[in-house]
Amino acid sequence: MRFMSQQTRHILVQHGAELLTEFSYNALGIDRLLRETGVSKGSFYHFFDSKQGFALEVIGWYEAYFEERFCRILGDSETPPLQRLAQWMRTGRNRLARHQFRRGCLVGNLSQELGSTDPVLSKKLQAVFRGWESWIADVLAQAKARNDLPADADTESLARIFWIGWQGAILRAKLEGSGKPLDDFSNFFIAYATQGGNFYIEKVR
Amino acid sequence: MRFMSQQTRHILVQHGAELLTEFSYNALGIDRLLRETGVSKGSFYHFFDSKQGFALEVIGWYEAYFEERFCRILGDSETPPLQRLAQWMRTGRNRLARHQFRRGCLVGNLSQELGSTDPVLSKKLQAVFRGWESWIADVLAQAKARNDLPADADTESLARIFWIGWQGAILRAKLEGSGKPLDDFSNFFIAYATQGGNFYIEKVR
Repeated sequence: MRFMSQQTRHILVQHGAELLTEFSYNALGIDRLLRETGVSKGSFYHFFDSKQGFALEVIGWYEAYFEERFCRILGDSETPPLQRLAQWMRTGRNRLARHQFRRGCLVGNLSQELGSTDPVLSKKLQAVFRGWESWIADVLAQAKARNDLPADADTESLARIFWIGWQGAILRAKLEGSGKPLDDFSNFFIAYATQGGNFYIEKVR
Repeated sequence: MRFMSQQTRHILVQHGAELLTEFSYNALGIDRLLRETGVSKGSFYHFFDSKQGFALEVIGWYEAYFEERFCRILGDSETPPLQRLAQWMRTGRNRLARHQFRRGCLVGNLSQELGSTDPVLSKKLQAVFRGWESWIADVLAQAKARNDLPADADTESLARIFWIGWQGAILRAKLEGSGKPLDDFSNFFIAYATQGGNFYIEKVR
């Protein structure tokens, strides 16, 4: 019985993640979610006190899913670090291509829609980005240690720019229904990271 | 009478732009818009056949507003081109700071929310981005002509990366309620553009 109910909870969260990757939070009707999963309203409110509580759990599920992707691809020490990063972007692109670029990143979508209006979700989303940044900063630090990046490369700042750009690229991929923005950014970022001189300049000419 | 009605139309569009810069399209209730502007439902549907038709006009208004900003800042031939670009980013940042980074870019917001689900709005939003890219590509080409960029700088690709990153930075600024992501991207982009070697590399090491 307990097993059954945890399974129901999992079904709701997983389907919620799918809906929130494609549609907005405001457009997500709990009724639709229940209809499509065949779960009763009573069960939903047994597990979650509100739509916000549900969204928090969906974000946590998505975070765990990404953690697995990071471990598998970025943690593969057999492959040189920048190749792992390029591979990570390639698999992300292919994942979006499977849905004709209709879906974006759940964390990016919710940040865009609710980042400035829902303090609870915003705090959680910021924490997710910090975790994601540390994965990228780590792999860049490994690249730097084997001289694939310049000795003065600022890997923390680069990781921040990575996520700013990657989220922007997903937004454009959705808009254009094409992987080109993701390819462009991927090529650009690897080229920049490997050739990049100083991150900051003193004064614009 | 005709003047009065055009004024009403303008009030609706301008207030709609404000609401859509802060809230999502799905969250935008026409009732709220009418209540806040004191316009009747009949007037609204006299001007616009649907919420989508209204959104199209709001995007057009925003585009015209940006065109004026581009002309004024990027078209100022007294100032070196990269300084103009840095100034443009700085005024954009300050504009967002005035609303504590709660508001984003209307075109970015709508792209994120509707880019893959509303073909009519998507087509318009893509056209807006193309226009915006050509402004940035132009100013970069002027910088290249006076040797502020490397001779082989690919100004079209740089302009694409600019908009990908700038939209990503706005998303993060909203999420963090801070201008830091915009400052980071601005410093980064100018540094990259001025120092950037080849945009593409053949193979990741």
